[in-house]
Amino acid sequence: MKKLPVTDAVWLMLENRERPLHVGGLQLFEYPDDAPADFLHQIAEEFRAGTLVKKPFNQRLSKPYSKLGSYSWIEDTQFDLDYHFRHSALPNPGRVRELLSLISRLHSTLPDRHRPLWETHLIEGLEGNRFALYTKIHHSVVDGVAAMNLAMNSFSPDPQVRDLPPPWARSRSDLRIDREHGAREAVDASINKAGSGARTVPGVIKALRDQYKQARIHEAEVVPYQAPPSMLNQAITGSRRFAAQSYSLARIKTVAKALDGTINDVVMAMCSSALRTYLASQNALPDQPLISIVPVSVRPQGEDSTGNAIGFLLCNLATNVGDPDARFGLIQDSMRRGKARLSQLSREQIVNYALALTSPMVLGQLLGFKGDRKPMYNITISNVPGPRETLYWNGCRMTGLYPASLMLDGQALNITMVSYADSMEFGITACRKSLPSVQRLLDYLDDALNELADLAGV
Amino acid sequence: MKKLPVTDAVWLMLENRERPLHVGGLQLFEYPDDAPADFLHQIAEEFRAGTLVKKPFNQRLSKPYSKLGSYSWIEDTQFDLDYHFRHSALPNPGRVRELLSLISRLHSTLPDRHRPLWETHLIEGLEGNRFALYTKIHHSVVDGVAAMNLAMNSFSPDPQVRDLPPPWARSRSDLRIDREHGAREAVDASINKAGSGARTVPGVIKALRDQYKQARIHEAEVVPYQAPPSMLNQAITGSRRFAAQSYSLARIKTVAKALDGTINDVVMAMCSSALRTYLASQNALPDQPLISIVPVSVRPQGEDSTGNAIGFLLCNLATNVGDPDARFGLIQDSMRRGKARLSQLSREQIVNYALALTSPMVLGQLLGFKGDRKPMYNITISNVPGPRETLYWNGCRMTGLYPASLMLDGQALNITMVSYADSMEFGITACRKSLPSVQRLLDYLDDALNELADLAGV
Repeated sequence: MKKLPVTDAVWLMLENRERPLHVGGLQLFEYPDDAPADFLHQIAEEFRAGTLVKKPFNQRLSKPYSKLGSYSWIEDTQFDLDYHFRHSALPNPGRVRELLSLISRLHSTLPDRHRPLWETHLIEGLEGNRFALYTKIHHSVVDGVAAMNLAMNSFSPDPQVRDLPPPWARSRSDLRIDREHGAREAVDASINKAGSGARTVPGVIKALRDQYKQARIHEAEVVPYQAPPSMLNQAITGSRRFAAQSYSLARIKTVAKALDGTINDVVMAMCSSALRTYLASQNALPDQPLISIVPVSVRPQGEDSTGNAIGFLLCNLATNVGDPDARFGLIQDSMRRGKARLSQLSREQIVNYALALTSPMVLGQLLGFKGDRKPMYNITISNVPGPRETLYWNGCRMTGLYPASLMLDGQALNITMVSYADSMEFGITACRKSLPSVQRLLDYLDDALNELADLAGV
Repeated sequence: MKKLPVTDAVWLMLENRERPLHVGGLQLFEYPDDAPADFLHQIAEEFRAGTLVKKPFNQRLSKPYSKLGSYSWIEDTQFDLDYHFRHSALPNPGRVRELLSLISRLHSTLPDRHRPLWETHLIEGLEGNRFALYTKIHHSVVDGVAAMNLAMNSFSPDPQVRDLPPPWARSRSDLRIDREHGAREAVDASINKAGSGARTVPGVIKALRDQYKQARIHEAEVVPYQAPPSMLNQAITGSRRFAAQSYSLARIKTVAKALDGTINDVVMAMCSSALRTYLASQNALPDQPLISIVPVSVRPQGEDSTGNAIGFLLCNLATNVGDPDARFGLIQDSMRRGKARLSQLSREQIVNYALALTSPMVLGQLLGFKGDRKPMYNITISNVPGPRETLYWNGCRMTGLYPASLMLDGQALNITMVSYADSMEFGITACRKSLPSVQRLLDYLDDALNELADLAGV
C-alpha cells in the first residue's frame, strides 16, 4: 500500500462537483486503407478480452475520501474494465463539432472514487475516415506531461506494427515516462528535503525582490498579483467546454524566424491576440494587460549539461496593446526576462520559486476562497514538446493530438499546446458557463497567426 | 422565486458523488418507413433552433448548495440548450447491450447544479431500425411518476401527428401531470398540516401494533426491520448499471388469472424468483426471506369514489422458499394483507404510515449512516401504471418505455415496472460495484415467468 505524496493527494482534496481534477488527451486517427467495417468493434473486443491491467491502471484509493489528505493506492481486486474502457460513437454527420461536444461532456464528469481513476473512450463515426481516442486520468495519478508521455508510448512510429497492447496493459516502466524532466518529482523531492528548501529561500527572495524592482522600470517585467480582474477569473462551475485545433508548425516557425523570436513567442502572441478578440467580443477586455503563468524549460545555473528543469514565469500578454508589432515585442521581452531570471537560479531555487508562484493559488482553493479575489495571474498557457515523428496505432496514422486540462476556482480558461510532427496542436479547456462560446478562440487563433504572418511579411 | 418544500429539498441535501438523485426514462422508437437518412439530425436541429423553454425546464437553483435545505428555483437567464439536449450515438453493432451500456453511464453522472437539473439524449444507431430517447430529471424537480407522465405527454396516440414540440417547450400545465394521484403532494400537504398529522397518529400506531401482533402468527405478515442483511443492502458507490427488457403483458395476465392472482402478484413473484437465482449465483441468498417495500394504490377508508391514494406496504418475497407454488402463495398472501391493512386507514393515515416506513431511511441518509446497518427492507419494487395505447412521436412508433430509478445508501437495487400497451416494461437500476453482472436479472425474470406459466399450466 503506497501512501500518496502531498503533491498528489492535494488533487483529491481539492476536487469537488465544480472542480473535477483529471487531465485528458484526445487523439485522432485515420483508418488504414484495408480496414473492415467492424475494425473498431474488433479492436474493442480484443481489448475487452485481455485481462492484463498494470499499475497505475489497476490501483484504486484504499479510502475514497480523507479530510486530512491521507490517501493510499491499493489494487482493485474487483477491477471492471467495462467501466473504464468504453466504445462510443458520434451522431450523424460526425463533424469535429460533434466530437468536441462529446469530449466536452466526457471531460466534465467526475470519476467513481471507488475505482481506478481513469477512463478511455474509443470513438467511432468521425467524418473523413477517422476515429478518435479520448483518455482521462486523475491528476493525483499523473500530471499532464506524464499523461501525454503515457499516451504517446502506446503508439509507434512504425506503420507496420500491429497488436499494440492497450495503454492499461503496459506498466509504468514500459511506458518510459521521463521522470527526470517531471516538475512534480522535483517538487516532491524539495518538499521532502525541508532543510535544503530553507537553504534556497534567500536566493528566491532575492529573485523576487529584483523582479519587483525591475517591474517599476520595465513594462515587460511582471510581478505576482499585478493581473487585472477579468472574466477569466471567476468562480467556476462543473461543466466544461473543450475545443481543439491544429495549426501549421512550419508556418509558426517561419513567422518566428522572420520576427527574430522563438516558436513559443509566436504561440504566446497568438494566444494574446485571440484572447484580446474574444474578450472584446464579450465587452470584457481589461484596460490592463492580461498576465499568463507559463511553464518553461530552463537550464539551471551552476549545473553541467545533464538536462533542464521546469520553471514557471509570469508573462505580460500585452492584450491592451492594439498594434501587433508593439504587442509581439512586449510579449517577447516579457518571456526573455522571465527566462533570464529563472536561469540565474539553481535547480532547487527554481522549484521553490515555482512553489512561491503556485502555492497561494492551491492554498486559496483548499481554504475555500471563491474565484472573486484578485487573481495572481489571469490564465495558464502551456506549450509542451510532443513527439516529432508521425505516430501510428495498429497501422492507423495519428492525425491529431490535443491536451485537455483542468481548472481551479478563479481560473476559468486553460490553453495547452503540444507540438506533434509538423503541427502545433492547441487544446482549450474552459468553464462552459463562465466563458460563453469560448470555442470561437479557435478562429481567433487562426486570425492571430495570419496577423503575425502579415507582420512578418511571410 | 419559489422556495422548495422540504420533500423536494431533501433530494438536494441527500445528493453526493455516491448518490446522484435523479430519475430517468428510456424510450425506444421505430423510424417511420419514409424516414430520410438524416431524420434524427433534422429533429435535433429543429429542437436546437427552438427557443421556447418552459417551467420547470428553465428553472435553476438560486444557490446550488444549502446545508439547511433552503432552496429556491429561479429562471436561468443564461439557459444553454446544448448542455441539456444532446444528440448521441451507439457504436457498431448498436445492440441493446450497447444502448444499456450508454444509459448506465449517463444515469451515473451528476448534473451541474448551476443549471436546470435535467438532460435529454437523442440516441441514434440502435439496430432494428430504431432510435432511443433518454431523459433524466432531478428528483427535487419531479418524482418518478410525474417524470413518466411528463414524458408520456410529449407523445401522441395518433401516428399522423407531426411537429410535436420537445418536452422542454411544454409547460407543466400543458403536461397535465396527474397531481391527484401523486404521493408526494399528499405528503407535502400532510407535513404542512402538522395538526392534522398529529390527529392521525393513534390510527397509524394501532395499525403498526396490529401488524406486529399478526406477524407473530402469520409468515406472510411483515414488520419493519425484519429484513435480513443481504448484498442488496450495502454502502453504494457512484456508478450505476441500468438494465431493461419488455415482457408480454398478455402472458402475465393469463398466468395471473390461472393462478387466481393479480398482475402485481405475478410480477412480484417474477422479481422474487429472479432475485433468488441471482443471489444464489453470488452465493449470497439469505436464509430469511427478502422483504420488499412496494408502493400500491389503495381506496382509503371512509371516502367516496373520488380516487385512490398511494400507500407503501412491506411484502415477504419468500426468496427462501424453493417450491414455486408455495412461494407464489406466500407472496400473494403478503400483498393481500398489506393492502387490506392500508385500506382500513384514512387518506391522511396512509400518508403518515408511509412516512413511518420511509422517513427512518431518509433520516439515516441525512445523518450519514452508511449502508451497513440492519435494513428496514431489502429492496424497492414499484409497478407503475403506464399508457394503455401505443404512442407515437412525430410518426415514430414507441416500442419500449423503461423507468430508471435512484438509489440510497444501503439499497443497491431498484426494480420498477411500467405497463405499456401489451407489455410489462422492467427497468433495473443498480449500484454497479455492489451487484456484479446484475443485468443477468433480465434472463432470470424470463426464467421466472416461464416457471410461473408452467405452474399455472398455461
